[in-house]
This record gives sequence, structure tokens and C-alpha cells, in this order.
Amino acid sequence: MQEMAALTRIGLAGLAVMGQNLALNIAEKGFPISVYNRTTSKVDETVERARVEGNLPLYGFHDPASFIQSIQKPRVVIMLVKAGAPVDQTIQTLSAHMEKGDCIIDGGNEWYENTERREKAMNELGLLYLGMGVSGGEEGARNGPSLMPGGSYEAYQRIEDILLKVAAQVPDSGPCVTYIGTGGSGNFVKMVHNGIEYGDMQLIAEAYDVLRSVGKLSNEELHAVFSDWNKGELLSFLIEITADIFTIKDDKGEGYLVDKVLDKTGMKGTGKWTVQQAAELSVAAPTIEASLDSRFLSGLKDERVEASKVFGPGILSGGPEVDKAQLIDDVRQALYASKICSYAQGMNILKAKSTEKGWWLNLGELARIWKGGCIIRAIFLDRIKQAYDRNANLANLLVDPEFAKEILDRQAAWRRVVSLAINYGVSTPGMSASLAYFDSYRRDRLPANLVQAQRDYFGAHTYERTDMGGAFHTEWFKIAQKSKI
Amino acid sequence: MQEMAALTRIGLAGLAVMGQNLALNIAEKGFPISVYNRTTSKVDETVERARVEGNLPLYGFHDPASFIQSIQKPRVVIMLVKAGAPVDQTIQTLSAHMEKGDCIIDGGNEWYENTERREKAMNELGLLYLGMGVSGGEEGARNGPSLMPGGSYEAYQRIEDILLKVAAQVPDSGPCVTYIGTGGSGNFVKMVHNGIEYGDMQLIAEAYDVLRSVGKLSNEELHAVFSDWNKGELLSFLIEITADIFTIKDDKGEGYLVDKVLDKTGMKGTGKWTVQQAAELSVAAPTIEASLDSRFLSGLKDERVEASKVFGPGILSGGPEVDKAQLIDDVRQALYASKICSYAQGMNILKAKSTEKGWWLNLGELARIWKGGCIIRAIFLDRIKQAYDRNANLANLLVDPEFAKEILDRQAAWRRVVSLAINYGVSTPGMSASLAYFDSYRRDRLPANLVQAQRDYFGAHTYERTDMGGAFHTEWFKIAQKSKI
Repeated sequence: MQEMAALTRIGLAGLAVMGQNLALNIAEKGFPISVYNRTTSKVDETVERARVEGNLPLYGFHDPASFIQSIQKPRVVIMLVKAGAPVDQTIQTLSAHMEKGDCIIDGGNEWYENTERREKAMNELGLLYLGMGVSGGEEGARNGPSLMPGGSYEAYQRIEDILLKVAAQVPDSGPCVTYIGTGGSGNFVKMVHNGIEYGDMQLIAEAYDVLRSVGKLSNEELHAVFSDWNKGELLSFLIEITADIFTIKDDKGEGYLVDKVLDKTGMKGTGKWTVQQAAELSVAAPTIEASLDSRFLSGLKDERVEASKVFGPGILSGGPEVDKAQLIDDVRQALYASKICSYAQGMNILKAKSTEKGWWLNLGELARIWKGGCIIRAIFLDRIKQAYDRNANLANLLVDPEFAKEILDRQAAWRRVVSLAINYGVSTPGMSASLAYFDSYRRDRLPANLVQAQRDYFGAHTYERTDMGGAFHTEWFKIAQKSKI
Repeated sequence: MQEMAALTRIGLAGLAVMGQNLALNIAEKGFPISVYNRTTSKVDETVERARVEGNLPLYGFHDPASFIQSIQKPRVVIMLVKAGAPVDQTIQTLSAHMEKGDCIIDGGNEWYENTERREKAMNELGLLYLGMGVSGGEEGARNGPSLMPGGSYEAYQRIEDILLKVAAQVPDSGPCVTYIGTGGSGNFVKMVHNGIEYGDMQLIAEAYDVLRSVGKLSNEELHAVFSDWNKGELLSFLIEITADIFTIKDDKGEGYLVDKVLDKTGMKGTGKWTVQQAAELSVAAPTIEASLDSRFLSGLKDERVEASKVFGPGILSGGPEVDKAQLIDDVRQALYASKICSYAQGMNILKAKSTEKGWWLNLGELARIWKGGCIIRAIFLDRIKQAYDRNANLANLLVDPEFAKEILDRQAAWRRVVSLAINYGVSTPGMSASLAYFDSYRRDRLPANLVQAQRDYFGAHTYERTDMGGAFHTEWFKIAQKSKI
């Protein structure tokens, strides 16, 4: 451990892997940092890592009082602890030693309303508060995450120089951080980022399933396909790691590891929140919903095994002949078009919430800070940024001229893939939800007239007309009865 | 107004149409009833209706004190006011004049947690409380609704004789009421009923759209088709009123009214809650979600009109030739199979909540009380009741032997309809979500292994294996890097 020459610039509490890595990242960028953890062995572990990784200016403390006192005033402390009650406990521990003007930053995946509640409570103590989404997993935290700080702008300004250096750096578009907005906006944006991430992962899984189950591609071929895709419009972290995954051999047996991984997906709540918020905001988000539902259904492994006995083989025979090269190209296009729909949904959730809360979110800027560091980083985000640069009030990504053209170019392949999957009995919930979203959104006349007529029939909910203004009610039942006589 | 000979049996507060109708229904069954409304003209209106509809024993009051005092002890008062704050206000007004042992029943579409909060507060005053779902719209309230009372069993017993007579009566299966369970279970069950209703209405709208847009059926033909369907497995209130709707001529112009109804669907919150609760409970509910999303998208009429200009005609040309008779038969089968999936989702939401809350919901009994009175009443509910009679712990309706057989018989037609719609660009979000649900559920091996491998790759979330127990983590990145060298 280095001798501490003076007070440090910032503190970090909560030294699980994410916290350790973010602290080391900050220290490496030249900002002396104090670290603290309730379980003190984690403090020593972090200090040792700082030594090994280059005598970084990181200083460990075993008690909260000396930890806080080691930081220069006005103090800033980042917390990286589990969302919920542990955050409240940590705030209590830290704030007991802090002074007016000091600031606490929550870097966890917290529910945005908790952040807003805490910001208020902190303000009453004269403390500032930020809820900062941190994306990029362990690796991102260490080498450059995407950072989504929301809350006090004053607090943000105080550490902007640190965040700009700590965040992922993307050539031609700068550091992956921006001030998101007031209140819980930073957490909310990170939540929707994760919802979009669910969508991306599900769509990739469906592409994999169709190629594997219908196209009969081997893991070697899948590796080649995803590696190839990662050179084009789909270039992204998730496609890259997917390509990697298909190369890993099982170290406990024959064959490839991916085939031994149980088809049960865990989750941590942000996808669920995204779906619930979409419903709350009246925003259709079928692709993200499909990805959440797929995780739920994946969890029912035993039920699925039983059901497969009732309904016979998973893959139906008798589907049309498949040309492998054509299938691969079609699936790439279907994946890309579906991805546009998924992002359109995510951005619209953000837009609706921004309006509700007065956050003034800059959607193009959000796309920019997701270009590096985070799990959904992709060349594709450039196109989204450009779409919002062209029109900051874009109603939907689908109708941006560039995206519209891309979808039109791909819709034939997209329809081929989804109907092929249906005929083979391979579920593509995300791709088909995306396609239905597109086909609903582009339709000037939906069958919703019938639904509204039904509602007026049984509940007198009234309806509007296509040809004149006003609300109308018809005695459907009485008129129908008369005509039956 | 009749002279009041003695105290009445029960009271009802809140005299909008639903309240008026339910009060008249109760009076007609021979139970003297007191009624009250803050706006007193509604009281007089109800009293006048009671006179006209047969000198029913209904007594109106213009102030809460004399209203309450007119009811025999221990008193029972049903409220039918708007959910939320109006309920709290009405409770305050009524309870001020009530005594220990009296009971208030909320008959509105209330959020179940509000009911649980109020039940607690009432108990502290020595009052009993029930949250009772009432389905069937205005007509059902008057002539026999489906009633879903939950909360105090003591309170339920006190009015069971009234409810048994007031509820819809279904030959061979009795009155459409049962004690649901403790707490907010009555409201929760009604909420899911409404979510299922959203699904039914959306699936019917999709059937209509495919027949109209792909099959080019006229309203006369649609009337014939739905009338015919209403003689078979799809026999239900919603199919019946749909058949009716196609017969109604526009009284303000040429042609049929349904074609003039604007394709914008309203909603009142219970569908949204169902979707949010499904997510909360980790239950996949894609069909119900699709129906909610379709309502959201229907609301974006102006955006859709703009998008239709960008993407060209709603219906794509070049789809396969369609045999009309075959299409009609296929759509019927697709609708029925999709409906099974939608109900499976709804019942599983109820099952999960019942387990969480210890409500001991009897799913077969719920199917029974939905057979009459309510909006989703259908012959189909008999089959659901039978399925739960066969196995009360059925994991999913899909694997009940009878339903499984019905689905297997229909899956070829179902796949034909959804892929046909996709090729014509007609969105069938509910049917395709149902099919994807079926294809996911019946699959012993989903591509969720890839998603879990990704999660372990970037977040060290660990994975299980197909061939041995335990949680595993692999350094995917490091191994892949090595193999690249």
C-alpha cells in the first residue's frame, strides 16, 4: 500500500468485483482514491490488486470514519453495493461521517424511484446524490464502462473530469458518459439499456436456434457465421462474444461447452422493470417482453421436458427444403430488422418517461454513450445517433429514412425466416414479435375498430369515427335484436 | 317510491349505470335494498327505475346517515364507485355512520393491494371488508353478473344468499359466484379475467383482420362466419356480439358501422396490471401482452398513417393464393388454439399469485363462475374446469390431455394462418405470440443455453450443465483469446 501523501480525490465503497474494478480504473487514470468495504478482507484484496497492477494511488480503510476523512472536501463517494436495502444501509453508514456539500453516488442497478427518494432524503441533510448506471460488467468497470449519471447536476460537474477519463473512449465519438438528467434518470436509462440488452440476447439466441435447428449448422459453422456477421452491420460486443462462445471446448467432456450449458436463463430484475414500465407508459415493447418471457419459459426446464413428451419432437419434419447459404443470409437480415424494432421500443420507453418526468433526455446522446463500454455496444448505435441527429423528435426509429430503407430491404428475408421457423416448429418469439410490431405500426387501419365496437357493445365505452369528430355510442344489442326479428 | 316497511337487507352506494343495475338486480331477487349516491339526482333516477321495472323493493336516500340507518344490522353496503381515491372517500363517508361488525364491499375494478390496505384499516375500526370483482358490464349487472368476492369469509357468508341469487345462473353448473379467497384475491382474479378478456378480443380482431384483409370477406360473410363459429367450440359471448356487430348498418351514412369505427382502442388499466403482475410473478404471458401492445399501437393512429406512407400498402401483394373455405376453417382453428394459450397464461398468473399470497385459489371453480354473466363467458370454460377437475395441480393447460389433443389437431392450420398473415404483411401479434409460446413450452431444449453462456461470459453469472449438477463459471474470454493466438 502506498503512503498517502494528501487527501484523496474520491472514495468508493462496496468492493465486490465491480467495485474493485471501477476503483482500480479510477486510480489508474491518476485520481487518488480511498476504498472501503464492510468485510475488510475485500479492502486488503483491492489494495493488493492496486499494488500488483502498477502501484496505483488507491488507499484502503477498514472503518467508515477514517475512509470518509481521507477524502478531500467536498467529498464524493461512489457506492457499488446490491440494490435495495444494502444501499440504504451503506448510505446510513457513510452519511453519518459526511458533511454538508458532500455527495454520494449509487453505481448499482437501482430502481429509479429509490434513487429519487434517497436524493430527497440526502438533500434534507445537505448532501448531494447521483444515481449512476454503470454498464460493461466486470471488464467494462476495469477498462472503461459506459456511465449514465443522473441526479444533481452540481454533483455531476464536480466529478465530470474523473468520469470522462474513466469511461470507455470511442474514437470519433468521445467518452461514453454524459449527464443524463435530474432525479432517477440515470438509473432509468440504465434499466432500459438492460431491457434492450435482453432483446439483443434473445434475438441472437433465436438466430442461433434457427441456424442450428433448421440449418443444421455445426458449432464451427456457427462460429464462422457470427465472426462474419461481426464484420458488418451487426458488429457488436454480443455478436463477438457469441462467435467466441462457439469455439470453447468442454473441459469436462467431449464436444463444445455451449452444448452442455443448461438452457435456463437467470435474470436480475431490470428486464422485468423495463416491461412493467413500458406498460405503465403505454408504450408497446413486444420484443423486450418476448425476451423476458423467454427467460421465464427457459426456467421451466422440467415442465418443458414433460411437455416435449406430450407434443413430440421439438423440430417438426416436413418443412420446406433449406439452402444453407440463403438461410444464413436471411437470418442475418431478420436479426438486424428485429433489432431495429427492439431499439425503437426501448427508445420510445425513454422518450415517454422523459416527457412524463421532464428529464429532457437526449436520445441521440444516449446512443452515443452506449457505443462503447457497455454490453449493447455496437456499430448500430451510430445509426441511431444519426437518426436522432436528423430529427430529435423522431416518432419512431422505424420511420427514420435510413432505418426505413434498411427494413424495406430486409423485410422479405425477415418474413421468410419467421415463417420458416413457424413451419419447423422452432419458436422465434422475439423476431415474430418484432415483425408483428412492424406490421402493426406501418398499418394505417388496424382491426382495433372491432375491439372498440365490442367495448361499446358490452360496456358503452363509446367510439370515435373515421369520418367525423366526437364520441359515439350505439345500442348494438338492441339494433341487432331488432334485425333478427 | 315504495313505503319502507322495515329495515332493508343491504345497501348500495354509487349509482352510475353499473351500480343502478346491480341494485335493481338485487331488489328484483327479493332483497330490499337501500341506495345512495353523492349526486342525489342519481338516487331519484334509480328509485324511478325500480318503480317502472316492477315496483321493486328499492329505497333511495339523499344523505349517508339515513342511508346507513335504513339497513338492518349487521349492515352490508356495496360500493360501485371509480377505483382509487373515490373509493377511499366513499369508505370515509359510509364508515362514519357504521358500527362494529358492519361490512363494506367494493364492487369496482380496484387494484388488489388497495383492497388489502383498506381491509386492514376497516378491521381496525371493527368493520369487515370485501373486494368483489363484478363482470358482465351493464347488462350483466342487471340480469346476472359473474361475481368474484374476496376478503373476509365471515362477510361473504353473510351475503352469500343474495349473491347466489343475483349472479348469473348457468344450467348444470350453478350460480356464477364463489368465495375466491382472503385479502385482495377477488380483485386480483377479476383483474386477470380482464387480462384474458383483452386476449380474447385481440385474437378475435386478428381473425377478423385475416378474413377481411387476406380472405376478402364482406361484412355479410363475416357475420355468417362468426354466427357459424358461435355454434361450435368457440361459442361465447364475444363471438356472439362480434357476429352481431357485422350486421349493424351505419346510421350516419352508407355501409356498415364497423367500417366507420375508428381503429383506436381505449382501456382502463386492468390489462396493464395483468401484464405487470405476470412480469412480477415470472409468468410468461405473451398473448395478453400482445393484446395490450395492440391497444397501445392502435392509439398511435396518426403515427400509423404516417408510417403507412413510408412503408407502402398495409397488405402485401404476392402472397399465396387463398381458398376461402379453407382459410375460414384454418382461422377458426388458429383462433381456438391461440385462445388455449392465452387462458393457460392467465391461469398460470393466478396460480403463481395464489402460491405467493396463500390464497388457495381453486382454478376449476374460477372457470366455472366465468361460464356465465361475464364478458369471457364461453363453452370453452367447461373444458378448463374439466382440465382442473382431472388435475388440480396441472402445470399448464397445454398439457392437459384433452387440450393437448385439441392443439395437436389444430397446429397445422394454426401454422398456416400465422405464416400466411406474415406473408401478407397482416400482423397477428396475439396468434403468433401464442404459437411461439406453444413452441417454446413444448421444447425440451431452448437456445437459452446461449443466453446463459453470454451472461457468464460478460457478467460471470455462472451456468448449470445438462450433464451434472452445480454452478459453473468459465473464463470464456481468456480461453477464446488463447485459441486465437
